[in-house]
Amino acid sequence: MRNDARPILALTLGDPSGTGPELLAKALPDPALRALCRPLVIGDASVMRDAMRIVGGAAEIRVADSPSALADSPAVIDVLDLGNAPIATLQRAKVSPAAGKAAYESIRRAVELTLAGQTHAVVTSAINKQALHEAGYLYDGHTELLAELCGKPKVTMMLVAGKLRICHVSTHVSLRDAIERVTIERILAVVKLARDGVRRIGVREPRIALAGLNPHAGENGLFGDEEIRIIEPAAAEARRQGFDVSGPYAGDTVFFRTYQGEFDCAIAMYHDQGHVAAKMLGIWQGVNVTLGLPIIRTSVEHGTDFANAGTGRGDPRSLVEAIKLAATMARSSERSVSA
Amino acid sequence: MRNDARPILALTLGDPSGTGPELLAKALPDPALRALCRPLVIGDASVMRDAMRIVGGAAEIRVADSPSALADSPAVIDVLDLGNAPIATLQRAKVSPAAGKAAYESIRRAVELTLAGQTHAVVTSAINKQALHEAGYLYDGHTELLAELCGKPKVTMMLVAGKLRICHVSTHVSLRDAIERVTIERILAVVKLARDGVRRIGVREPRIALAGLNPHAGENGLFGDEEIRIIEPAAAEARRQGFDVSGPYAGDTVFFRTYQGEFDCAIAMYHDQGHVAAKMLGIWQGVNVTLGLPIIRTSVEHGTDFANAGTGRGDPRSLVEAIKLAATMARSSERSVSA
Repeated sequence: MRNDARPILALTLGDPSGTGPELLAKALPDPALRALCRPLVIGDASVMRDAMRIVGGAAEIRVADSPSALADSPAVIDVLDLGNAPIATLQRAKVSPAAGKAAYESIRRAVELTLAGQTHAVVTSAINKQALHEAGYLYDGHTELLAELCGKPKVTMMLVAGKLRICHVSTHVSLRDAIERVTIERILAVVKLARDGVRRIGVREPRIALAGLNPHAGENGLFGDEEIRIIEPAAAEARRQGFDVSGPYAGDTVFFRTYQGEFDCAIAMYHDQGHVAAKMLGIWQGVNVTLGLPIIRTSVEHGTDFANAGTGRGDPRSLVEAIKLAATMARSSERSVSA
Repeated sequence: MRNDARPILALTLGDPSGTGPELLAKALPDPALRALCRPLVIGDASVMRDAMRIVGGAAEIRVADSPSALADSPAVIDVLDLGNAPIATLQRAKVSPAAGKAAYESIRRAVELTLAGQTHAVVTSAINKQALHEAGYLYDGHTELLAELCGKPKVTMMLVAGKLRICHVSTHVSLRDAIERVTIERILAVVKLARDGVRRIGVREPRIALAGLNPHAGENGLFGDEEIRIIEPAAAEARRQGFDVSGPYAGDTVFFRTYQGEFDCAIAMYHDQGHVAAKMLGIWQGVNVTLGLPIIRTSVEHGTDFANAGTGRGDPRSLVEAIKLAATMARSSERSVSA
């Protein structure tokens, strides 16, 4: 980023039969967005051309041979053409192994370029898990796939919607198992990932709030004692280690308080506690960030939205927010890359 | 309601040292609100006069001897004077047994009048639990107190914020206990209370959505099997009994979908799942409704807001919504009362 402070973002196409390509075609010609970053779409150029036709946009889809050879103009969308989902054979709004394979290849190339320092962050569009599986890639989703491509570091997901930032002590386990995973060790690990992630968004000393596990954070032990036995000691230990951590707070208000600006990040004790809060703000405005990877990665919060595929009516707001956040994180990152 | 379709609402003063009286003084002079109901404040008239002075309003506080002798004008606030919290001795924003006793008496009288058919619904302002306890009334809160005054029926709380209506399978128990309370029997009981409650709001055949207990509603048994063992059979049995019930749906989106109008009521499997959703919309707009009582009762969602007591800066929106909802429910109620 020596010659141009705007980071180069590797944007995956997502599942080519979903709305991903159309959302990119809608979002990228915006000069205000281009003032923040230099986007490079990784996927099939013929799919992007068709998407531009569908949304009725005027930007030219131009094939770029490498991240260092971008047209870099709002009138052009630069595409690293993988030629892996020819529009003639693509079926819109359908689960297919061909689409799953194309989605996988787009992600892999975006990660490789970013690990190599040729691009500065990855922004992912929605994929279809079933299509991925039918193509033989048996991952639970983006996060597991990204972790594997990056050497399996310990990662966690942060949900971001405006000032509301949420990390989770556990996610895809049963509620019974989630209770067992509320340990001092896990809370400290998530606090560390959360602080590092929020710092990259530009908050120097993030104020981190822990949610309680039980209603009203247990109301002094009246409804469960995990707050007293585990969460309070974890907060104390985190403070001892220099983190600005407080709580546990009643789960039903801590996310609203964070959204209002009282804290910079809230730690949910289990999946639904945090996800309910984030999704009440609308899935079309939220962004996911994977923390703990050696690269910056943000993602849309919604799915492939097959219902709107091919109509041009998909909502690009989550994608726009994901792009802006990736640009912010790449700019403030200490990881210096040459462009 | 033969002579006047507008129901008479018994409005409790709440804890007199909190913002309750000021919020009533702000809300009640509105002619649009008075077109929907005939309000009667139950409490100390001197506190209401002082509240009107604080908010700088012009309405007259007039003592009414009974619900059948109301001035019933936006220029007047009718008060059934309990003379139990003389303003000369009242300390604002302080927990005191005197205030707790006054709050209790206001609730008891409002319930008695409504059970007797002299008023058509109860709308409660915020109380302070500690003050109630110091006065010797050892209830967990409004709901337990109201249930006792009404002969201990099986009750449940419904949270209402716009189109979002939420009932809970359990509330004030630990998360571990909450999981054990997810039973077919309890789900069916809550579905019945929810349907009856939403019908009173004017929805003839409410579409009721069950949330899952586990993330993604268990994703076909991958993260817990309570959906398969308990929630799906409960939904099937409810449909067999004639209820319009569907689900279980992923907990993180079912409340947003309900808020958007896809369902008329969502059933949360435990406290925080539903309360996080409702409170993300802001505690100044939400309303609580107690279902299962022989009377209609709505309530503000916020507390006594001691920080704003005496300043006139309290936010009356939740109170206004609680009054409107009580008026709607009283009007659509089959329980016919003479006015």
